[in-house]
Order: sequence, then C-alpha cells, then structure tokens
Amino acid sequence: MDRENARLLADANPFPETIDARLRQQLSFLIEVDRLKTVLRQSPLAAVDRRENDAEHSWHLALMVVVLAEHADEKIDVGHTIELVLVHDLVEIHTGDTPLYDTEMGADQAERETAAAEKLFGLLPDDQATRLRALWDEFEARQTPEARFAKAMDRLEPMLLNWMARGGTWRTPGVTADDVRARKAVIGDASASLWAAGRELIDEGERRGWARPGHGLSTA
Amino acid sequence: MDRENARLLADANPFPETIDARLRQQLSFLIEVDRLKTVLRQSPLAAVDRRENDAEHSWHLALMVVVLAEHADEKIDVGHTIELVLVHDLVEIHTGDTPLYDTEMGADQAERETAAAEKLFGLLPDDQATRLRALWDEFEARQTPEARFAKAMDRLEPMLLNWMARGGTWRTPGVTADDVRARKAVIGDASASLWAAGRELIDEGERRGWARPGHGLSTA
Repeated sequence: MDRENARLLADANPFPETIDARLRQQLSFLIEVDRLKTVLRQSPLAAVDRRENDAEHSWHLALMVVVLAEHADEKIDVGHTIELVLVHDLVEIHTGDTPLYDTEMGADQAERETAAAEKLFGLLPDDQATRLRALWDEFEARQTPEARFAKAMDRLEPMLLNWMARGGTWRTPGVTADDVRARKAVIGDASASLWAAGRELIDEGERRGWARPGHGLSTA
Repeated sequence: MDRENARLLADANPFPETIDARLRQQLSFLIEVDRLKTVLRQSPLAAVDRRENDAEHSWHLALMVVVLAEHADEKIDVGHTIELVLVHDLVEIHTGDTPLYDTEMGADQAERETAAAEKLFGLLPDDQATRLRALWDEFEARQTPEARFAKAMDRLEPMLLNWMARGGTWRTPGVTADDVRARKAVIGDASASLWAAGRELIDEGERRGWARPGHGLSTA
C-alpha cells in the first residue's frame, strides 16, 4: 500500500485560497489523515463481524487511557498519553498495518515507518511537523512513562478483542500461547496489574484451546 | 436502534473472575463501547466511498484538537478538550446518530441521550461513571472554553468532509446554504478564524452549486 507517488487527497479539491495559508496546510493534513480509516488491522471487532481499522483502534486506545490510567505504575500525564495514541499509527497511512505476528514484514518496519513519518508530518507547518514527529518518536522509543502506558494500551486492546472473539489472531498459524505472552509482555513495563490481567486472559485462552499450547502456563 | 433489553457484549464471554472486580467492570465497559464503531453517520469519508462511523469521527475530532488548538479564541486545556470529544458521542451506542438536518429526530434527542448516558456510564465503577458523565454533560452544556472548542470541532469536521465530497450532506433535500450557516455558526463561539474559514467553504460551496442557495452570501 505504498502511495509514494499518490497525490494528496486535498489536491483533488483544494481549499479556497481565501483561507489563510497556515490553516489551509493544517486542513489539508487533517483531510489526508482520513486515510487512517481505511487501514485495516487483523483484530476482529467485538460488536460486529468485521476487522478493525486504525482510526477506530486509535480512538479505542485513547478512551482506554481515560478509563485505565489509574493502573499505571508510574505517574502519567493523561492528556499527553492520549496525544501519543492519537498519532501513533498515522504512519500506517503509507506503510499499512504490520501484523504483530508477521516477522517478515516486521524486519524493515522501522525503516519504512520512519520514511512515512517524514512524509506525512511534513505536510504540516514546520513547528507542528516537529511536534507531531516528536510525539511519534516518543511513542516508538518507550522511554517515558506516558509512552510505556500508550504502548501497553496498544497491546492490550487487541487482546480484549481477541478474548471476545474466542481467539482471534491468537489462532494465527504457527503462533503459540508463549508467542502471545512474549509479544504482550511490554504491558508489564507500564502496569503490573494490567499485565497480570493480560496473562489471565492468555492462560485461560490457552486452557480453552483458543491459543495453541506453548511451553505454557508455568512461564506466564 | 434502541437496545434497551440487549445484553452487554461482554456477557457473551465474561472476563475471568480471577481478574479484579473493578478492572473487570472497566474492561466490560471498554468492550461495550466497541459498538460505537458500528454507529454510522451521514458524512462521506474523503479517503474512500463509504459513510463515517462514530468511532472514526471521534478520533478525527481528537486529532483536530491537537492540530487546531491554536485557533481557539479562549485559552483551552488541550488534554481536557480531547477527553470531551472522545466521550461526546458514546451515548449514540443506544440512540444512534441524529443527522444534523433532521428536525424530527432532533426533537426528543436530549431526552433520549440523557437516558442513554445513565445506562452506558453506569457500567463503570461509580467514581468513573460520575466523571465520564460529567465530561458528557460539559460537552453538551457548552459553558466552558473546552466544551465550546470541542463542539466547534464536531461541527467543522463534517464540513471538511462535505467540502471534499463536493456537497455531501449539504445536498440533503430541503436544506439550503443558509441552513448550513445557521447550524455551523456555533463554530464562531470558539474560534473566529475557524468560523471565517467555515463560512468561506459554505459560500464557495453555494457558488459552485454544492448547496442550494439560501438568502445567501450577504448573511454569511
């Protein structure tokens, strides 16, 4: 889904030049990100039988921050954490979603996403391009309590959807319960209680046959 | 789309009781709100030919707050404003979307939505039910700078999508450009510059025949 040579959406119907140039740049960016609503993830929705898209996912994470912030082991700024999840998947407008259990796509993921970030955030006025790029970098680096908690939400949300789907992407061919545990363990960097709950879901899912046995429950 | 007697989504596959009761309550709420992804709005997406859903819309508003906050005429707390837009449409899980130009549905909208708010936020632990209900009430009342700005985003976003669609819901039978101006004027309560831009879009849309002539440009 590389759109290297694609025009911007707003180019198809430019905003009137009577609107201030800086605002026009912001509006064109805000139209371009509409594409996030078309980037499909692997996760099955709980409410209806279809896959989730990145915009829905980003909204869900943001609301999770509001409701689950009390579980953070370190003090977090809730508003800042929400900003991180709002922008964290924007680069997938150019790269597409990289499924969590796809090691091949994962290999050059960082490189592809960095190029996409340059391109997408570059649509904004310089000061805002810098600011949104910094939010994306912060999320990726996981060096702040807010970024660790945002990442935990990003890993926990599909886990909740997989639970509701009685397996969902846990049933991906070749994936075992231990693989799920390994990929989800970063939740524990932000919240011991949420990771304890996450382990319960995986353990119980394995017991019910929703995830292939790994080396199993003892390593959880 | 009244679901008065519908079970909760999480009831179909309850979270294990080994998870702390308060957290289970939070997770069940977070699964229930997955329904927002199924509530369709009238607005056509810019990126692909289908209508927008409420979860996508809520995410878009939140990102608009991040990018457009500088246009607020009063000082706003960005994080708080984002929280308002994240929860503002949640009650539509029970009531469905009320189209902006549908006066019949609009008549008892407040009553239906208040009942829905009681029901939905009541799924949360009491302290959080109170807090999220307060956010929803604040958005509806528009008495704070944050609520006014959140409302402005709620009115501006579909306007941007309608612009990209060369009319979109502005072409609703019986609706004139003046009707659009009247419904969108609340943007001016939060931001003179964004409302000036919004008026440009409506005026230019009317000139191009994307909205039926109202008493027209002079009242803009």
